This record gives sequence, C-alpha cells and structure tokens, in this order.
Amino acid sequence: MKSLWNILFPAFIVVLMLCWASPFARAAEGKPNIVIILADDLGYGDLGCYGHPSVRTPNLDRMAAQGMRFTDFYSAAEVCTPSRAALLTGRYPIRSGMCHDRFRVLRRESTGHLPESEITLAEQLKGQGYATALIGKWHLGVWSNDPAGHPKRHGFDFNFGLPHSNDMNPAPGAPKGAPARLEQDPAWWQAPLYRGEEVIEKPADQTTLTKRYTEEAVKFIGAKKDAPFFLYMAHTFPHVPLFASEKFRGASPRGLYGDVVEEIDWSVGQILEALRAAGIEKNTLVIFTSDNGPWLTQGLAGGSAGLLRDGKGSTWEGGMRVPGIAWWPGKVPAQSICREVASTMDLFTTCSNLAGAKMPSDRPIDGVDILPLLTETGKAKREAYFYYRGTQLFAVRMGNWKAHYFTQPGYGTPKPEAHEPPLLFDVHVDPSENANVAAKHPEIIAEMAAAIARHRTTITPVPTQLEATVAAPK
Amino acid sequence: MKSLWNILFPAFIVVLMLCWASPFARAAEGKPNIVIILADDLGYGDLGCYGHPSVRTPNLDRMAAQGMRFTDFYSAAEVCTPSRAALLTGRYPIRSGMCHDRFRVLRRESTGHLPESEITLAEQLKGQGYATALIGKWHLGVWSNDPAGHPKRHGFDFNFGLPHSNDMNPAPGAPKGAPARLEQDPAWWQAPLYRGEEVIEKPADQTTLTKRYTEEAVKFIGAKKDAPFFLYMAHTFPHVPLFASEKFRGASPRGLYGDVVEEIDWSVGQILEALRAAGIEKNTLVIFTSDNGPWLTQGLAGGSAGLLRDGKGSTWEGGMRVPGIAWWPGKVPAQSICREVASTMDLFTTCSNLAGAKMPSDRPIDGVDILPLLTETGKAKREAYFYYRGTQLFAVRMGNWKAHYFTQPGYGTPKPEAHEPPLLFDVHVDPSENANVAAKHPEIIAEMAAAIARHRTTITPVPTQLEATVAAPK
Repeated sequence: MKSLWNILFPAFIVVLMLCWASPFARAAEGKPNIVIILADDLGYGDLGCYGHPSVRTPNLDRMAAQGMRFTDFYSAAEVCTPSRAALLTGRYPIRSGMCHDRFRVLRRESTGHLPESEITLAEQLKGQGYATALIGKWHLGVWSNDPAGHPKRHGFDFNFGLPHSNDMNPAPGAPKGAPARLEQDPAWWQAPLYRGEEVIEKPADQTTLTKRYTEEAVKFIGAKKDAPFFLYMAHTFPHVPLFASEKFRGASPRGLYGDVVEEIDWSVGQILEALRAAGIEKNTLVIFTSDNGPWLTQGLAGGSAGLLRDGKGSTWEGGMRVPGIAWWPGKVPAQSICREVASTMDLFTTCSNLAGAKMPSDRPIDGVDILPLLTETGKAKREAYFYYRGTQLFAVRMGNWKAHYFTQPGYGTPKPEAHEPPLLFDVHVDPSENANVAAKHPEIIAEMAAAIARHRTTITPVPTQLEATVAAPK
Repeated sequence: MKSLWNILFPAFIVVLMLCWASPFARAAEGKPNIVIILADDLGYGDLGCYGHPSVRTPNLDRMAAQGMRFTDFYSAAEVCTPSRAALLTGRYPIRSGMCHDRFRVLRRESTGHLPESEITLAEQLKGQGYATALIGKWHLGVWSNDPAGHPKRHGFDFNFGLPHSNDMNPAPGAPKGAPARLEQDPAWWQAPLYRGEEVIEKPADQTTLTKRYTEEAVKFIGAKKDAPFFLYMAHTFPHVPLFASEKFRGASPRGLYGDVVEEIDWSVGQILEALRAAGIEKNTLVIFTSDNGPWLTQGLAGGSAGLLRDGKGSTWEGGMRVPGIAWWPGKVPAQSICREVASTMDLFTTCSNLAGAKMPSDRPIDGVDILPLLTETGKAKREAYFYYRGTQLFAVRMGNWKAHYFTQPGYGTPKPEAHEPPLLFDVHVDPSENANVAAKHPEIIAEMAAAIARHRTTITPVPTQLEATVAAPK
C-alpha cells in the first residue's frame, strides 16, 4: 500500500501542477508575438509598393500584398531621438523631455536618456511574460555616459547594436560632408557595436551591420519561438553614412542608397521567413515603418518622400508621414490599404492591449488602439494628431485636414515662420500641401484650436534630456 | 444509291469547307486581341500602384498585380496630339508633322490631321483581319474641318467619342480659368460627341462620358469576341475640365480629380471583366498608359508626377514618364515589374508583330518590339529614347543615363534654356533629376551625341499639320 502511495502521490502532484500551469501556458500561447521593424530616415516614397521606380523591395512589396499598407502612417516626430522615445512610450516626446529645439537628438556626449519613470512597450510586454530584444540602433541614451540610459533599464532583456546614429563618431580624418558621400571609407567612422553592456567591436564594421542584425533577429526568433516575444528591430540604415554588405553593394539601380534599402528589404524577408519556419506566423504581428522622413539635404545619399513636401526635420508631410506596413496572416486582411491616420505611438497601445497589459493610468498616453484598423473592423479613437518640431507644436491633423501654425524647412533655415490664421490643407485632396484653403474653412480652424487647447491642458513641463553632456565621451 | 449520295455529297462539301476554313479560324484565334487604354494627362504618381495615397485604383492595382508594371514607360511626346500620333504610328511626331513649337496640339479650328500617308496600328491590324474601334478622344484631326482627319480614314471601323480635348469648345459664358475649376458647370463646355461621322450630342454631356465610353467598349468586346479585334480606348479624362458620373462624384478622398481617375479605374475593371466573361482574356493583350504627364498648372484639377520632376509639357521625367501596365494572363507574368525603357511607340511594333503584320519598309519606325520584356524572355532592341518638345530634340536617354540639351518648364516660360555640355542624370540613381553629373561622364555624353547624330540622319523634314486653320470651325 505504501509503495502504491509512493507512486500515486507524485503523479497526483504532477497532474495538479499541469492543471495549474496549463491555462497560463494557453494564455501565453494566445499572446501574439510583436515584431517592430524600424528603418532610419527611410522616406515615404522609397519602397516599390510606395511607388519608387528603382529601389527594388520585393519582400516589403509582398509583405504589403499579404497584409496592410497604410497611406497615412506617421512617425511621432521629425527626427530620430524624439521619434523613438514616442514609439516606445506611446507618448509625444514633449512628455518625456526627449526633444529639444536646438539639439534635436541625443549626441555622443549626452548624459540624458529616456527617463526611467517612462514606461516602455518593452516593459509593458515583459510584464506579460514576453522575451524582449532590441536589435539595432537605440538613440534613447548613451549608456557609456549614464548607465540608466541602457535598454535593459527600459525593459529589454537583450540588445545588440549601436547606441546612437552611425554618423556620431566621425574619425579625426573624416572629410567634411563625409556622411553624404557615396564612396564611403569605413575608417571615417568609429561607432561602437554592443552586445548587452559590452563593446564587442569598435569601430563597428558598418558594412555587415544589417546582415548581423538580421542574423541576431533570426536567432532570437528561433530561440524564443515557444514564448511570446517582442522584437524591436531598429535598423541603422538608410541613415548616412551608407554601408551595405558585399552581396548588395553595387546591386541596386538606385545606387548606394538603393543597395542599403534593398538589404533591409532582404532582412525583412528573412524575418518573415524565420517566423514561418518556426510555425508562428499566425501568432505574430509584424510592423514595418520608419523613424522619420528622408534626409533630403544628404543629396543622393538621402531618400525620397515621393509626392510629399519636404523631408526629415520638418513638419511638412514628407518629414513625418512614412511607410507603414502591417502583417499578421489570418488577422490583418491581405491586400488591404488603410487610409486612416495611424502612428508609431499607436503601437504602444495596440500591442499592450494585444498582450493583455494594463494601460498606465497615471499619465496621458497619446497612442490609440489601431487593432480595429488592422483587422478592418472599425475606426481608431483618435481626435487629432499633433506635429511637433522639438518642443513646439507646429501643426495638427484632424481627419483629412491639416493646419500649420508654424512652418520651417527640415534643415538650413534658422527660424520658423508663424502663420496666423494657420495654413490649412486637405491632405487627401492635396497631399503635396500646395493649396492653402484656410480662408474657406474658419470652422475647421476653430475646431483645431479647441483640440489644441484640450491637448495643451494635458502637457506638464518636464526637463529636457537633450542638454546635459559629459566633457569627454568614452 | 442516289439517296446515299444525296446525304454524302453535302456532308463531303461541309467537311471540305471546314478543312479549308479551319486553318484560317485557327490563325484568327491565334492572333491576340489588342486593347490599348490611354488616359489623358494622368501623372506618373496618380495611381495606387504607383504610390498615390488617396486616389483609389483597386482595378488598376489588381491589373498590375496580375500582370506587369513598368517603372520607365514613356509617352512619345510631352503633349496630346504628338503623343497620340506617335502611339498610332510608332514614329516620333517629328516624322508625321504632328507637332509644333508654338501651337503644340491641334485646335478646334485646325485643318491639319494625321497624314493619310502615315500607317497606323489600326491599319496594320485591320490588314490582318482585325475589327478596329476608337472609343474616346481622337485629337489627330478635326474632321468637321477636313474629312481626311476622320479615324475611319486611318484604319478604324468604328468610332465613338470627341474629336479633340474636352476644353476646346468653351461656351461664350465660361469664366476665365474655367478648365481648372473644381466646381464645374456643364454649360461652360460645348464639345460634340460623335458616333462615326455623326454628331449625336452637342454639347456632349461630359459627366457620363467615361461611363458611355465603357459601355461602348464592353459592347464592342462582346460583339467581336470571335474575331481578333483592336480596341483603342482613349479616355477624355483626367484632362480638364473634370467630370465624373453621379456614382463617382464626391466619392474619392482625392476630390474631383480622384473621382475622375477612380471612374477610369472602374472602367478598366469593366473591360477586363468583359474579356473574362467572353472567355478571351488569355488571348488579349491589354495595355494601360497615359498620353503625357500631369497638367501641374491646373492646381488641384491636375495630377501628380510623384517623385518625378515637372509635368505635362516638359521633357523632364514628369512630362513624359507615365504609368504603364500590361496584362495578358498566361503570357505576361503576374506581379512582374519591368525597369527597362518602353514607350507607347513600341506598341505599334509589338502589336504589328503579334498580329503577323509586316512592318512598313519604306520609312523609319521608332518603336521596338517589347514582347521580350512583356514575357520576361529578353531585352528590347533600343539604342536610345529621344525626348522632343514640339519639333526640337530636348533630351535623350540611353540605358539609365539622360542628357538634357535644352530644358524648359512645361508651361509659362517662353524660352528654352540651352545646356552645353548637356545636363546629365542617372535617372535610376536620381529619378528626380537633381544631381547633374555631366562633368564626371564626358564619355556618356559623347556616346549620346553620336546616337543623336545617327538619329538625325533619319529625320526628313515634313510640313507641320498644326498651323493651317479654318476661319469659322463648325
């Protein structure tokens, strides 16, 4: 009798444990994986499926054909650091202090970083049992200047990549205008490549960055395929200086810029293929987008905003409207086009909800849940979308209307031009923002003024993170 | 015995007749139907599949997905009359006299027309037993001024549509700038609608033109489905003034211009559906393109060249590079993109060859056979593509290189600017034509000069057709 008990009791315990664990296991299975692929300075017009004639992007075109292409998808800022802060927090960068009118982005000597009081999408998902990885460019804190800026302090289990933009460590011998050069010398650049907190290569060999980011991503997907995971794949390119691996160098009709974008396109194909190979494509939402518009002042090393006006650095459409492609077989309808406004900030809210994470209740969140758009089952609850340049609200969009209170070219013009009444465009009728119709629609401008007033009541001043620096960055 | 004979003899005759007829029937079956759909002033950036955010073109997008989208497809001229002359003859308009530096196109009072000595694609195909129809805008002769300008004198069995552009008969009461108005009054326009040689409506109700063109086209396809046929569907729109039928008016996010393009998109869908319903889609080549770039000076009533420079009237890319979509299920590979140069003139050569028509041997033909491109089996035999503005050669393209000897905005600038050496652009690397690289590539410019010299030896002066007029047009 005792020996039977010796067998039955452990068996009973095992059964009990299975019963206890299985709903959790099922819940975990039900949580979709999230992959956000962010290109750097890629313009609205730079992909085949957005009309570029000579950049060949068969993988992204196929991703769009199998999923949803957004025509009115926005980054939350006109330059890198604020845009990334907004993507990860679901909040306009003015709320986190991750913007500045003069400095615009974190520099190599900056000690500021995404405040630890901010809640990132990585933290939201980690709280729901997700494995989290940042592969690529961070630019939300130079952790060699302040360890609190490291991605692990912001929800990422794993990181591989550069702390900031690839042009931020020019070598002493780099010529003037080196970033825009189409014939690059790797010796001009000395950015460090990190795995975790460790520098594994300095200077980073930029020619193989996209390739190595991709390998890391595929490895991460393979390793975490049984757990829910969040992969934030933040490419270093096509930010200048441009580098592509040997297989892509010289291959694109569009020249070096095309080589670099075509390698990113290849990378996207590898990631979708890895998801399929792992059999988890039906449980994974993949988003492809860009942190801001094309850097037009870089000449042929910069991209194209297509028919949109201006580019990176500006609050004209070309500065902030970017490619946006969503892919989730079985959930996001194939061959769908969404013409509603959506933004990178919405990914915080949408993905938090998908994972079952509670939305923070102690702070305004600007992102809205776009699952109804992604599944073509309804609208998103957005009143207005605000275009900030640094700390200043330059423009606002409501429905198809956009009003500019200030305008300023992305680069090269020292002062904004104020508009009273604001310039008003119907950006569906007039996507290139040529025909100011303010005089005809005072009622729209009045509505916008009210929306801005409401928005302003939600803004609490915070210190900027972009001013403080160390004397000698490591 | 005799009664058996009475049965067998007729049967014998029937069998004989079948034997005699069947190779012809097979030959006729083997000749593919040709459908050329030509939009008027539609820009490179105006379709969804070419990146427009707010013009919705699901039928053309699907046609491209089921067939081939050209990224470098050219009209043969920068404005309407010369472009159409070149399309139908396979020759630069300078060879037929269908161009002029000041008048640019035929006007309502013009007596000139496509010379009867010119051989049109309709004549080529008619000679091979094709039924031929022009539905839509002609603009190669105002036949009320000279009957030799009528399409039946140029190979078309059937015609239904307007003799010229829809803005050419303004009513006395039409206000200044009426064509560009987004709120149109049908009473401002008095163009005649013809069936054959008969005016069936004057003024033509332009709001239903696209709809009626489509109904005529579908009827023609149904009636001729057993014979090979050539349908030249030359839309009146989106040339200004813009009109759409009730179903489309006010429907497009892009406003009136979008309404008009979306109705053309619907029309394309109806034509492809009619081919399918007749069971002849696998024996029909359908080409969709435009006669020139968007008329930018018409403001929101004009289209978009996307990322290309300038528009209608100019020899910058935006003036002559246009959407080009080919569809032929089973022959043209689905989801294919062609980045080689192709042009409307090539349709003469390609379709003549497909139909088994001999190429004229007594004159230069500028179009080349693009069947190898359409079937992805090889290259087309083109040395260079020449950009004429009126009678003057402004630019040349060889491979990915384009040299401008003269430039001039499409409208509003009285004189061309000469360039010596020419401006040189790599239009694959630099599709927006921003970075002149002439200084770096004298060898390319030398090659181009030689190609131009060879081309010039083939040009014989002919009288222009665009000067002579009647005092009082009917």
